[in-house]
Amino acid sequence: MNPKQRAAEAALDYLQDGMVVGLGTGSTAEYFHKALARALTDGRLRDIRGVPTSRPCERLARQLGIPLVRLADHRPDVTVDGADEVTPGLDLIKGLGGALLWEKIVAQNSARMIIIVDASKRVDRLGTRSPLPVEVVQYGHEVQVSFLRSLGAEPVLRRFEDRPFVTDEGNFIYDCRFNGIENPAALDAAIGLRAGVIDSGLFLGMAERALIGYDDRVETMSRRS
Amino acid sequence: MNPKQRAAEAALDYLQDGMVVGLGTGSTAEYFHKALARALTDGRLRDIRGVPTSRPCERLARQLGIPLVRLADHRPDVTVDGADEVTPGLDLIKGLGGALLWEKIVAQNSARMIIIVDASKRVDRLGTRSPLPVEVVQYGHEVQVSFLRSLGAEPVLRRFEDRPFVTDEGNFIYDCRFNGIENPAALDAAIGLRAGVIDSGLFLGMAERALIGYDDRVETMSRRS
Repeated sequence: MNPKQRAAEAALDYLQDGMVVGLGTGSTAEYFHKALARALTDGRLRDIRGVPTSRPCERLARQLGIPLVRLADHRPDVTVDGADEVTPGLDLIKGLGGALLWEKIVAQNSARMIIIVDASKRVDRLGTRSPLPVEVVQYGHEVQVSFLRSLGAEPVLRRFEDRPFVTDEGNFIYDCRFNGIENPAALDAAIGLRAGVIDSGLFLGMAERALIGYDDRVETMSRRS
Repeated sequence: MNPKQRAAEAALDYLQDGMVVGLGTGSTAEYFHKALARALTDGRLRDIRGVPTSRPCERLARQLGIPLVRLADHRPDVTVDGADEVTPGLDLIKGLGGALLWEKIVAQNSARMIIIVDASKRVDRLGTRSPLPVEVVQYGHEVQVSFLRSLGAEPVLRRFEDRPFVTDEGNFIYDCRFNGIENPAALDAAIGLRAGVIDSGLFLGMAERALIGYDDRVETMSRRS
């Protein structure tokens, strides 16, 4: 097993029969979906229902035979998702996969959030390794560039096959390079108050636990309180 | 002239030749568009270009012959828009017309914002007369009801012809009744940090001046500093 897969398998330990599980998006989350599908097939787990966080995730879950329910009807007992950066305090950057908004909606409505990553995602400070994805409405999106620069970012409009990438919600994404984010909470608040900037990949104070996969083991990090 | 029209006409005094003007949405703003079009026809103003804040506003401006430019290319020198509530400190509730997101993007990118209203829109405290429109993404929108209730609101999904009303950006709107909003800044911040809640009709600290139309006069309110 590779480190991502190892972390994904370990997350099964946090599931119980009958739970509603938020299903993350991205390569590590996909290992989890596959592990979950196997556990449902071989009877290790029963009566699990998933809440998808993106259309690709929804398609994969259907292929794997994981029963799905709507977030509106069932709040997840636990969400299992990957991350692009994890700090020792379990603050995260997510959304390089382009699904940050749905992922965040599901995470904010889950009783618990467990992060599965390989060890390369550990950082001491957010914004050192990964750009921060920021989702913006298409209308007037160009004016957000100077706003994002005023926050210390170097924003680049994400492209896909020579066109701007469009999210499930019809928005654009600016990938914002920081030279380390000094005050993530202040950045989160500034983004929140800006019209036309929908959300960012900052997930602060949401994850309860991170399972870090290595070649030979999984380490568990819990929130410092 | 009725009070709305009177306020709209008075806003022309704040325009100068060559300006880029943010064009608001709603019945009072439409009086302003018509007054502006007349001023351009009779030569009182020249070389004004407008930035529309909604598709209906864009259509009307084209019909009236007001030249339009894109926000991305031209930041407005001034935006003239209506409001549903105005406090003595010039904080606003807007967006009953359903265009709050574009209106707010344009307002945040304008050098000045001038509000035109009739006297019925004056309130001592926000959320006493008008519901607060809150724009939410369609995905999982039902879960935002309990969130909005936790903020003291009684939210009602806005409908249009027996279906949920859909904004220019493809979102839904919950009209939120408050029994007066105690702390608008705290409410604005809480909404900003919530994933899936795009924005609200709170416009705090943005308007510089309000022109209040009465049957026989226009009163001017400037921001208390």
